[in-house]
Amino acid sequence: MARNKHPEETVNLILDVAYRLFMEKGYERTSIQDIINNLGGLSKGAIYHHFKSKDEILVAVTDRMTAQSNQMLSAIKDRTDLNGQEKLKKIFKDSIQRPVQDEIFTVAPDLHNNPRLLFSILRETMDEAAPNYILPIIEQGIADGSIKTDYPGALAELIMLTANIWMNPMIFDNTPEEAYQKFMIFGQMMKGFGLDILDDELLERLQELAELYQQNK
Amino acid sequence: MARNKHPEETVNLILDVAYRLFMEKGYERTSIQDIINNLGGLSKGAIYHHFKSKDEILVAVTDRMTAQSNQMLSAIKDRTDLNGQEKLKKIFKDSIQRPVQDEIFTVAPDLHNNPRLLFSILRETMDEAAPNYILPIIEQGIADGSIKTDYPGALAELIMLTANIWMNPMIFDNTPEEAYQKFMIFGQMMKGFGLDILDDELLERLQELAELYQQNK
Repeated sequence: MARNKHPEETVNLILDVAYRLFMEKGYERTSIQDIINNLGGLSKGAIYHHFKSKDEILVAVTDRMTAQSNQMLSAIKDRTDLNGQEKLKKIFKDSIQRPVQDEIFTVAPDLHNNPRLLFSILRETMDEAAPNYILPIIEQGIADGSIKTDYPGALAELIMLTANIWMNPMIFDNTPEEAYQKFMIFGQMMKGFGLDILDDELLERLQELAELYQQNK
Repeated sequence: MARNKHPEETVNLILDVAYRLFMEKGYERTSIQDIINNLGGLSKGAIYHHFKSKDEILVAVTDRMTAQSNQMLSAIKDRTDLNGQEKLKKIFKDSIQRPVQDEIFTVAPDLHNNPRLLFSILRETMDEAAPNYILPIIEQGIADGSIKTDYPGALAELIMLTANIWMNPMIFDNTPEEAYQKFMIFGQMMKGFGLDILDDELLERLQELAELYQQNK
């Protein structure tokens, strides 16, 4: 392994292997040694050169998945055939429907007991996704008349904090029944902001993911 | 110091000293060695017997402050002269007006970069304060007709997540202007749930705390 020549390839290899092991064995049951054993001769030093801990690897795996999610957000943001409110609805639908969600909820990392990983998701949600994707869409909605608010930045943050963090059954270890109650309150909140973007299909999918998490955690 | 005879006294002494130093020097600039130097001869081993790291000490200091805050919540919950909605309003007012808030915002711990501490605040908020104090008050409000919701548990969580976490200028490093925008969106959200419990006094206090944080961080 020429790790100094192609550090990106080394990192990608580590993340590929780690992701596969997290899926197969679960995050808690995968050790750094397991990852090393599957790297085809890459040394312990090489992996520690890039990552200080298993947590850091999980953060990087998550970051890579986030980058894919951001591509989806970006593509919806730039569509010209939908108004702002329709784009928000499309984002919710596409985010929760993605097949990768089944994989993530099957891995069922114990976010409930993992401050570092939760923090990285919170950061990504509030410092990246809210200002870079949701805010521009809300501003488009204000311009096209489909969304009304005087505080688009704060509204973008509130929507993302609730949708991406609070409603995530993995983060708060929610049962399908708890997921249902959160969904109903979230829907009421959104309607209070004039946003009528939830439907039964979304609810059923959320409960399905909560069920998947409860089975695999 | 007979630490084995009176472990609680030892812990309290450590927390008293740590709290005072965090106030005087700031959390980041206080070292474990500073704390030991002020413990009147208590050994390094004795402090590590109780706390593994400075972060753990901060969590314990925070827990002790939380216990005081919970006493306040509990006293309001049990009052018989206020209806549910009035109790919620009273809690918001008393929480933000407490003089200890000036101390905390002057210490200005860097929550924005402290996953462990943020996680402990999130846990306390969602797993303790929401179900044990806010939920019973919402249920009282449903019974007395001052609050209307079919999902009191989820509403209690949403209110606490937004009020205690998202609106905390320390956690999201907010300027007074950002605090203002969040407050306006939060107020609109609360009105959507039929809760009209915010006023200018609360807003001014929130901006004051944001200002205090920005000066001291």
